[in-house]
Amino acid sequence: MSLKFAVIGTGALGGFYGGMLARAGNDVHFLLNRDFLHVKENGLKIQSDIHGTFVIPNINTYNDINTMPVCDVILVCLKTTQNALVSNLSHISHKGTMVIMIQNGLGVEDDAASMLPGSSIVGGLAFIGANKIGAGHIHHLEHGTLRLGDFNVKNPAYLNNTIQAFQNAGIETIYTDKLDYIRWQKLIWNMAFNGTCVVLNTTTDKLLENPQTRKMLYDLMTETVEGAQACGIPLEMELVEENIRVTDKFQSYKPSMKLDYDNGREMELKYIYEKPIQYAEKAGYKMMKMKILLQQLYFIQQQIIQGK
Amino acid sequence: MSLKFAVIGTGALGGFYGGMLARAGNDVHFLLNRDFLHVKENGLKIQSDIHGTFVIPNINTYNDINTMPVCDVILVCLKTTQNALVSNLSHISHKGTMVIMIQNGLGVEDDAASMLPGSSIVGGLAFIGANKIGAGHIHHLEHGTLRLGDFNVKNPAYLNNTIQAFQNAGIETIYTDKLDYIRWQKLIWNMAFNGTCVVLNTTTDKLLENPQTRKMLYDLMTETVEGAQACGIPLEMELVEENIRVTDKFQSYKPSMKLDYDNGREMELKYIYEKPIQYAEKAGYKMMKMKILLQQLYFIQQQIIQGK
Repeated sequence: MSLKFAVIGTGALGGFYGGMLARAGNDVHFLLNRDFLHVKENGLKIQSDIHGTFVIPNINTYNDINTMPVCDVILVCLKTTQNALVSNLSHISHKGTMVIMIQNGLGVEDDAASMLPGSSIVGGLAFIGANKIGAGHIHHLEHGTLRLGDFNVKNPAYLNNTIQAFQNAGIETIYTDKLDYIRWQKLIWNMAFNGTCVVLNTTTDKLLENPQTRKMLYDLMTETVEGAQACGIPLEMELVEENIRVTDKFQSYKPSMKLDYDNGREMELKYIYEKPIQYAEKAGYKMMKMKILLQQLYFIQQQIIQGK
Repeated sequence: MSLKFAVIGTGALGGFYGGMLARAGNDVHFLLNRDFLHVKENGLKIQSDIHGTFVIPNINTYNDINTMPVCDVILVCLKTTQNALVSNLSHISHKGTMVIMIQNGLGVEDDAASMLPGSSIVGGLAFIGANKIGAGHIHHLEHGTLRLGDFNVKNPAYLNNTIQAFQNAGIETIYTDKLDYIRWQKLIWNMAFNGTCVVLNTTTDKLLENPQTRKMLYDLMTETVEGAQACGIPLEMELVEENIRVTDKFQSYKPSMKLDYDNGREMELKYIYEKPIQYAEKAGYKMMKMKILLQQLYFIQQQIIQGK
């Protein structure tokens, strides 16, 4: 069985995973925005430090979901701030279409499921270092493992086939039955560093150098672990120390939310902050420190949206 | 009995209160820093919207505590970041000298008492609108009430005489036996607005316009009220609403800490944030939201000190 793929959002993630699938001979259809004309004419360029540099020349490009063909597997690689688009995916779905949400944060599958009733939703987390460095030009630096977790898939064999297709294309793809665990685990880092780098307009190394903000990062990460535990997700407290240790090795690093801020793009507050705080609160735990950080970020978000 | 006054720090507060005392014929000695030469030559100018404009021409000016005469009453009107100077006041004190700490925050009297063993310390809070608008030039806009509370005064009659001298000089001066209550009461506003305006680089009106930061200010002020209550200070929760109501009337207002930040001056974190948080924690209440705000402010303070 040959699968037809749609890639919704051809940034670093969508470009890399879609590009790898296309290179392996799969039928892949890419939704683009700003880079549409450039990629239509020049193809998509993947410059991978692991897989070499390659171009997908005769590429199926679209700048409107409604013009795309019905697909079997849809990779949603949008910034979550664009997730309103997900409801349009019904136009390119058949009864068995599987929608894979490759995004950070918590609760993206719930919202996708309510926007696409009857569909099969899969959660995805990408463990990858990749950046878009130009129009239709993706630089893949390291790793690339994709972890996929079943949210409400009707036909499990279908998910297996998809994982097989990814693996055949050279993408390490691992099925997980602990999607929520992994989502919360990634939030430990994301909730502490993303917002703080924006509010204090700085990079991870500067925050870790200062003893008081270093302590604050411990405090914030501890709150995320406790929030997860309240939700029944057994995150280990040692992960806090481990995240600090790993980040201590980064050079002057800007988290993705800081890049969004610097470029005047809306920040992904809903799934990285709002939802985890809400879920924990429903489970009886108040993430009080994160709430202050989020309230500050709302103020900054408003400035971004108003073009300051 | 005629009292000899020292004014330590001739900014808006020291200039106004010292100027009023001098105008009434008291013997007042002013410590100055940057404005020393200007005031020595031109006198101190008070432009009061209530008392009219007047100049103290033949003024006793000093730029070194050690050259000042021994005084009976010392008004400490420094930024608390300069409080290391307080230990030098022993040089100009006799056995009965009274040191009045006219500063915001909590715990300034404790620290002054341990720097000046055996002295008589009084706490002071100024309810006044005044700014220094030029070298040796104070603009007094409104109010001016001084509330004085006994911390460890040996001779209460002495405090009464001092209050009398202030009143004779046209300064409304009220004795309070609830110094801690008033200090905490002022902290409700100061802890919420000062730090937040710095961290979010904005003014009070902008914070109150945004529904999420408006909510945050309620949350932060509520924490201060609860912190005070834990310390046995019966602050009423209604004060939160009252502070919002009053601040809603301000135009684009910058709290003093924001002015310090904008001018690259060290911020008064110790007595406005650290001490209240410590006192509350000792009493069993964790001001978790304020702690995050303080940790952020430490980071910004470091940038100020390093001249960024």
